[in-house]
Amino acid sequence: MKRPRTSFVAGLLATGACAASSTPVQAADPLPSWNEGAAKAAIVRFVERTTRSGSPDFVLPAERIAVFDNDGTLWAEQPMYVQLLFMLDRVKTLAPQHPEWKTQEPFASILKGDVRAALAGGEHALVELGMATHAGMTTGEFERTVGEWIATAKHPVTGRPYTEMVYQPMLELLAYLRTNGFKTFIVSGGGIEFMRPWSERVYGVPPEQVIGSSINTKFELRDGKPVLVRLPEISFFDDGPGKPVGIQMHIGRRPIAAFGNSDGDLQMFQWTAAGPRPSFCLYVHHTDADREWAYDRTSSIGRLDKGLDEAKARGWTVVDMKTDWKHVFPFELK
Amino acid sequence: MKRPRTSFVAGLLATGACAASSTPVQAADPLPSWNEGAAKAAIVRFVERTTRSGSPDFVLPAERIAVFDNDGTLWAEQPMYVQLLFMLDRVKTLAPQHPEWKTQEPFASILKGDVRAALAGGEHALVELGMATHAGMTTGEFERTVGEWIATAKHPVTGRPYTEMVYQPMLELLAYLRTNGFKTFIVSGGGIEFMRPWSERVYGVPPEQVIGSSINTKFELRDGKPVLVRLPEISFFDDGPGKPVGIQMHIGRRPIAAFGNSDGDLQMFQWTAAGPRPSFCLYVHHTDADREWAYDRTSSIGRLDKGLDEAKARGWTVVDMKTDWKHVFPFELK
Repeated sequence: MKRPRTSFVAGLLATGACAASSTPVQAADPLPSWNEGAAKAAIVRFVERTTRSGSPDFVLPAERIAVFDNDGTLWAEQPMYVQLLFMLDRVKTLAPQHPEWKTQEPFASILKGDVRAALAGGEHALVELGMATHAGMTTGEFERTVGEWIATAKHPVTGRPYTEMVYQPMLELLAYLRTNGFKTFIVSGGGIEFMRPWSERVYGVPPEQVIGSSINTKFELRDGKPVLVRLPEISFFDDGPGKPVGIQMHIGRRPIAAFGNSDGDLQMFQWTAAGPRPSFCLYVHHTDADREWAYDRTSSIGRLDKGLDEAKARGWTVVDMKTDWKHVFPFELK
Repeated sequence: MKRPRTSFVAGLLATGACAASSTPVQAADPLPSWNEGAAKAAIVRFVERTTRSGSPDFVLPAERIAVFDNDGTLWAEQPMYVQLLFMLDRVKTLAPQHPEWKTQEPFASILKGDVRAALAGGEHALVELGMATHAGMTTGEFERTVGEWIATAKHPVTGRPYTEMVYQPMLELLAYLRTNGFKTFIVSGGGIEFMRPWSERVYGVPPEQVIGSSINTKFELRDGKPVLVRLPEISFFDDGPGKPVGIQMHIGRRPIAAFGNSDGDLQMFQWTAAGPRPSFCLYVHHTDADREWAYDRTSSIGRLDKGLDEAKARGWTVVDMKTDWKHVFPFELK
């Protein structure tokens, strides 16, 4: 997504006009933003063979568990993870209460506007940032903070609210699966409490079906009123080999369908594919530098390298965003 | 439940006959095993005012979260927690592979049949027992072990399978709430993976709605096959102040109804009652030494002391098992 804003918008309008002319066909198609092709056909074939009564691959509704990565799978993760952008904004907002941040990294660099220098501290810098912005308040206070931020913050490239930077084809896929009796879960490396305040409204996924990374909380009575205080201690990291662990912890049964976009989803796919029932794994491959971004094997965000090889070896579905998706974002349809 | 087996069975038959004669009335009543009284009236009143369209206290279906403790609330916890009885059986089964247990506590005492001596080691002994019987295998292996045990093990007093030692009035309450759009969760101090293999069949609560204590697991590829290995490390203790923490971790929204029987449920009740919506908290008070057991303030299992005081002070519902429950166990109805 490197085009200047004006041609980007013009492109969207052109796409939107095209979409409007084909409305009647779309009405009957549960996946109207998917071009006809191998990916769409594979999705429909899997859903039909696992849900059609009498099919040898029929799966009981209770066992139709579908898990979705979030960053890069349901919404855009470029030029930075949204939650990192949230942290940067929070550091600026909270800075007046932390005069020490003027000289303390990674905060000092952020306050000077040098994100690259701030993140040069690697994982340690990220954990510092996370704890300073995610801990030390109650769960209720954090939920309100996220809710207010997500309602007002804008994507640095498109100027759109982040909740509009979601993928229209994936919204259709979520709805299509639910219509066919699947229970849809988010399984993300992102913070569980960062997603819950808006996941139901944006994705139709209720808080109890959101799995993510977390910090510890502690029950306290404050003036007789019970609160849960967010502590500066990482409880669970829901990425890579953590994803099957998170799935077992929260769901307690193995998914039959898994959707992701990076090597961080590989173990979730392996776990899904190793079950006794038919299974379906799908990688979203970011190949569209015009409408979105193009990145895979060497990207520091959402690297897809081992996963791409294993997908090819095992016949998992790989979505070529550029050719498989008629539209990328919902605002293209307006 | 101290009566000899024969009079116990005779008592059940008498109760069963009584139940059969009132069948027509029961058909229209969603809570036929509850005697008419304050507890039943309070349950029905709460459900009606939160679900009737146009009621000022109406709660949207998505927010109708109900949480149930398990031990002593949904099934009997006397003369010992069922999971402890599972551990004792497992120690005996695994003993041939552990010759060192002959001299090592708490195992040596268990193998000699002296449970009291084994448990004299307190929490340390319990953790030893838990790790020896719950860790060191894959999640799939543990699930099979629990499934096989629960299908064959018998209650030491009644000789019934443990899954028949559930409370008929609570089964009716679970169903009544679900019929009225509530989502029912178990929130237990017991092991999450100990309950999941049978919770759906016995309570109608699917694995993804079971919250409990847990140990850490680790993803591994064994000969290319992914497994989750159960590690001898406690991950989360879902009791007392841990219950609101577990609720937030797994559900991500506050319940409006909570059901328990001990001080271990008190913080869950406080958390539930402090929400912005109408709420309902109910203690099962074990008052029936004939049909079940009678215990509360001084019991080492399921102590109900502070909770009983707070229930009275705050107007929470307290079920007097002896007078409020027409039947206790489902087998009384047969």
